[in-house]
Amino acid sequence: MAYPQTAFRAVTVHDDSLIGRRRQAVVKNTLLYQLDVLKKTGRYDAFKLKWHPVYDEPPLIWPVPNHLFWDSDVAKWIEGACYCLKQQPLPEIDAAIKELVEMIRSAQQPDAYLNIHYTVVQPGKRFTNLKDMHELYNAGHLIEAALAHNNLYGNDQLLAPIVKYVELLCKTFGPHSSQTHGYPGHPEIELALLRLYERTNDPKHLELAKYFLTERGNPKGVDGTNYFLWEAQQRGDDPDKRPAFYSEPQSLWYHQAHALIADQATVEGHSVRAMYLLTAVADLCRIDKGDELQPLQSALFGLWDNMTRKKMYVTGGIGAIKQWEGFGPEYFLPQGTDEGGCYAETCAAIGIMMLAQRLLQVCGHNSSWPLNLTDVQIDCNSRYGDVMELCLYNAVLTAMSHDGKGFTYVNQLASSDTDLSKREDWFTVACCPPNMLRVLGSIGGYIWNLQQNDDARPVVTVNLYISSTLETEITGQPLRITQKTDYPWDGTVDFDVGSSVPGLELRVRSPAYASSHDISPACPGAQLQDGYLSLPADWLAEHKKFTLSIPFKARWVAPHPSTEQSTITLARGPVIYCVEDYDNNWVNDHFRGLTIDHNAALHEEKTTDATTGDSYVSLILKDGARNISAGQIPAYPSVGVEDLRSAIQQAEKIECLHFVPYYFRGNRGGKGHMRVGLKRSEQ
Amino acid sequence: MAYPQTAFRAVTVHDDSLIGRRRQAVVKNTLLYQLDVLKKTGRYDAFKLKWHPVYDEPPLIWPVPNHLFWDSDVAKWIEGACYCLKQQPLPEIDAAIKELVEMIRSAQQPDAYLNIHYTVVQPGKRFTNLKDMHELYNAGHLIEAALAHNNLYGNDQLLAPIVKYVELLCKTFGPHSSQTHGYPGHPEIELALLRLYERTNDPKHLELAKYFLTERGNPKGVDGTNYFLWEAQQRGDDPDKRPAFYSEPQSLWYHQAHALIADQATVEGHSVRAMYLLTAVADLCRIDKGDELQPLQSALFGLWDNMTRKKMYVTGGIGAIKQWEGFGPEYFLPQGTDEGGCYAETCAAIGIMMLAQRLLQVCGHNSSWPLNLTDVQIDCNSRYGDVMELCLYNAVLTAMSHDGKGFTYVNQLASSDTDLSKREDWFTVACCPPNMLRVLGSIGGYIWNLQQNDDARPVVTVNLYISSTLETEITGQPLRITQKTDYPWDGTVDFDVGSSVPGLELRVRSPAYASSHDISPACPGAQLQDGYLSLPADWLAEHKKFTLSIPFKARWVAPHPSTEQSTITLARGPVIYCVEDYDNNWVNDHFRGLTIDHNAALHEEKTTDATTGDSYVSLILKDGARNISAGQIPAYPSVGVEDLRSAIQQAEKIECLHFVPYYFRGNRGGKGHMRVGLKRSEQ
Repeated sequence: MAYPQTAFRAVTVHDDSLIGRRRQAVVKNTLLYQLDVLKKTGRYDAFKLKWHPVYDEPPLIWPVPNHLFWDSDVAKWIEGACYCLKQQPLPEIDAAIKELVEMIRSAQQPDAYLNIHYTVVQPGKRFTNLKDMHELYNAGHLIEAALAHNNLYGNDQLLAPIVKYVELLCKTFGPHSSQTHGYPGHPEIELALLRLYERTNDPKHLELAKYFLTERGNPKGVDGTNYFLWEAQQRGDDPDKRPAFYSEPQSLWYHQAHALIADQATVEGHSVRAMYLLTAVADLCRIDKGDELQPLQSALFGLWDNMTRKKMYVTGGIGAIKQWEGFGPEYFLPQGTDEGGCYAETCAAIGIMMLAQRLLQVCGHNSSWPLNLTDVQIDCNSRYGDVMELCLYNAVLTAMSHDGKGFTYVNQLASSDTDLSKREDWFTVACCPPNMLRVLGSIGGYIWNLQQNDDARPVVTVNLYISSTLETEITGQPLRITQKTDYPWDGTVDFDVGSSVPGLELRVRSPAYASSHDISPACPGAQLQDGYLSLPADWLAEHKKFTLSIPFKARWVAPHPSTEQSTITLARGPVIYCVEDYDNNWVNDHFRGLTIDHNAALHEEKTTDATTGDSYVSLILKDGARNISAGQIPAYPSVGVEDLRSAIQQAEKIECLHFVPYYFRGNRGGKGHMRVGLKRSEQ
Repeated sequence: MAYPQTAFRAVTVHDDSLIGRRRQAVVKNTLLYQLDVLKKTGRYDAFKLKWHPVYDEPPLIWPVPNHLFWDSDVAKWIEGACYCLKQQPLPEIDAAIKELVEMIRSAQQPDAYLNIHYTVVQPGKRFTNLKDMHELYNAGHLIEAALAHNNLYGNDQLLAPIVKYVELLCKTFGPHSSQTHGYPGHPEIELALLRLYERTNDPKHLELAKYFLTERGNPKGVDGTNYFLWEAQQRGDDPDKRPAFYSEPQSLWYHQAHALIADQATVEGHSVRAMYLLTAVADLCRIDKGDELQPLQSALFGLWDNMTRKKMYVTGGIGAIKQWEGFGPEYFLPQGTDEGGCYAETCAAIGIMMLAQRLLQVCGHNSSWPLNLTDVQIDCNSRYGDVMELCLYNAVLTAMSHDGKGFTYVNQLASSDTDLSKREDWFTVACCPPNMLRVLGSIGGYIWNLQQNDDARPVVTVNLYISSTLETEITGQPLRITQKTDYPWDGTVDFDVGSSVPGLELRVRSPAYASSHDISPACPGAQLQDGYLSLPADWLAEHKKFTLSIPFKARWVAPHPSTEQSTITLARGPVIYCVEDYDNNWVNDHFRGLTIDHNAALHEEKTTDATTGDSYVSLILKDGARNISAGQIPAYPSVGVEDLRSAIQQAEKIECLHFVPYYFRGNRGGKGHMRVGLKRSEQ
């Protein structure tokens, strides 16, 4: 039960939770809207392999043709749609899936090859530009769509042709002299192959994923050089011609191909690629315990540590740099375009959730996990779950409007005139909206982990608190557990273990924001270990209904001081807050001139918003904020510290500063002014 | 007396001042060392127009051939050497100048054309790539060298051939249909032409400069498009091939050619180019009072204001972005590579001094300056002098070692492992070291301004306090004024007006850092206006010897809060301080983990450094600093505000934190750890 994309089938998310509401919005609005977009833009019919006018257009971002991801756009929609159909029947969606599957089947070439661009636009050029052309990325999404399709319909209509295509790939890529020693510029197929391996048990599928992951970045891959550089030489590329997303020639780090993954110590480059890649590495490490993978395992946990400590925003977002949609230097985390950048792409945050979920599996699955890795302590602790939850309620959820009709690609922590806090219907590069479909469709799979402990007794771990019911089997026994909660607004969770599984133990996550936790009725044998509270089997057998209580109180948090920013952010439970102009309409500078006294009084209030029907806890800071316009600070180019203090002390006082959850921003209209981190006033 | 490059001849800088010491170092070491480099690298003989192996090498930075600035390297050395020869005879230097001038003369083509690259390497391609190939930039430096040469030797050996070359340029460029409607990618010739015009009074020279300045950035310059874009089309350039210093295709803003200068509201792109360009604009505005130049004048002062308020470091440095060696977004001023960048190129800071000096002239020259420009208040106030002085003692002086043998190109405010605070002998692109020669050689010209006020009475303005003697004529009378001071260590300046000029008025700058100023003997009629203290003619006639006293006391300054940095910097008088590892050898993180309590006691001490012989005031903060390593802050990715406070309060206390002037950094060895802005502790 490793993958949320299959595990979700055992979980019913209750409609009355925040996540349940968003899932309803997706099913009700997003699915059909995205189907409509697929049709209008030509994507829907692209597998018919006819010429489309877009194929003649010059690329918006050279060298990437504008239609290059169409295969994946269709595949991701199919995948997400299959997850949603599990929730409820949707005849129109069902019919579209079937038609698309037929088109995909008919597009397969006699030798099993399956890619729109290289069949229609550049026949004969297959596998000549793995770095830029997303050929294997598209294949990866087709595999994931096929697995979701197979899982829902139980037939091989999509899976069979895709497995054939994978056979072709297994022949094409590998270490033998007759094979191509390459790997994809955009990782995705690696994690897809490992999921496929779980389904097929075909060692070739595992081998190909392992090859891609262990060969990537080999400095002497082909003819003594890196594969991507060799490939460019073969194409006769002009070395001075480089994609707009390269900040320098040969930006191998953009693709995480500057060194073997095992030799990478800092997380670099395009953030979505990095997350997809590391998710696959985690899967490989869980499946293959070979000694030769020890350095890769060590690098994996090191890269996670590097990212969460030094390259992650307080919202869980990653990627400061727009040019390469990815990571900047360590601790370089400006909040928005006007402050030096901020990207925090939706798909990257979804990728973090995938990675965190996999890391929990790596530890959980492997009780004999080697703990003697140099510099890296693998401590299957709540931090993975904390970050997964942080991303879900903030960096991910903020990317979709309350009704599932508006999306963001980039999730900055502060708006600016050039990048207002607003959502769009769709994007040319349409990765993010369908990814929301996929993650919300399969969210049930992220809530619980099932495993067996050292003496083979069943253990259920609760990573997320979302009102839901788990119904499955464990150690051959039927298992049913329900959690009911008003999370993320209230830290009270009522559990009901509705079945008797001998020896069942339950582990519930104690988040880092929990100043305390309480189990009621009391559980004297409960033990806190690595951030999880273990409820022993004997107690659980006697207490099938119990309540976990975590006190929720608004708190101020700060980014690491090495970010060189003296900002503070309001948080409550797992939710990060922001200010936006809708509630604070005096603002005209994106809240850049605001300073905050964090000792001032905070009021909280359960609110149901009239426009959206969304309920949340809103926060109000009373007499704790001052606002000064940039022009009032006499810095040419510096200002005396006392002059600065006095300018701020004389600035306009804001009696009530209103905060709303960051994910809720941009749902009620307004000017699009928003900010998460606010300047801390100097006392 | 508009140009410091000619005005300096009337000024003797005393050897016992800091600036005097640095001038001696330049004369004693830099001149000969740089001559040696010219010879070793092939530059010295390049005007012989023979093939050099470097011409075959691929460019380090495409599309700029590695030898492209050689003309200017020679010209700048000649220019700087001529300034130094005014100070004292140096036979070897004198002989080299004469030999170089002969070579330059012999390199001139029959039609007066004079450029190494397009004569030797790409004959027939003249003026086909104004954007990238520095052809007119080199011409500008040849003009400046010729003026310095003519000024020193009084002959036309260099000036005559250069004027002929300028005649060719005047025919080639201009508004007529037979002429090329272009302008240089790297400004320099504009300010050189205006200086030439002062010497020749030839209206063609003024006209060409004016054309370059008013045509630049014309969106419909040729065939309805920008000249640089048109030119690229003519060359058949691949639109997806772009120089490494372009962050995006068609980065016209890199060259300040994205709009007419009159339409530019924010200072953008390559910072040296911007400063050279605006210096010429200021000269043009002083010379030409035509109504059609009003928008250009307005833009000039607006761009200065934009730069000094929003795009300048506390050291006076400009340019946050390494890729294009120039300006980032407004208020984006990180201190070093690890924090997001910092460039602060030496030549750019020298350019600011030139620009500030010219702006003082624009105001001073033009008492009927139009004050009704929209959004821009032209207030010939001390701020121009303040910034000029700030740059001199900090962003400029830090670029040269105490002995004139080591240089920096980039002047970050904080070091990092990749960019240590260290100096080099020379650079491939060798603009900065010869520029130090030029500015220190002509520094006397920056100290004083001579002008006549509304009723034609003589006024001498003192912009810089440097021990020196001015000897010249004003309103037909001999003038001699001496100032003696221990500036920048002591704010006491003894003036001696050693001649009687009827009606002479003196204006002395009251810097923004002066909490007060005192004239002794008392001058009851002294008036403070626009930051200058005016000493009336009648009082001055009675008090030829007087003392100006400005109290110097260490003070904490901060950058504008919109930089999003909560740092403070120690300053004293015009000098900005830094900490470096030589005095604080416990450091291992470039002082990034340091937090400062600005209320702690500061001790100051006049120090003479044993290694260098340099004297300065060193500052010591007692019991006011704590140091914590980044790893001790538990941010994943955020930390509770109270946890952060307690972590810092428990951090290691630094009993004595030693500060030295920023310009003095890197003179005594050490590890190269240095920082200017230090984190302010949260009380």
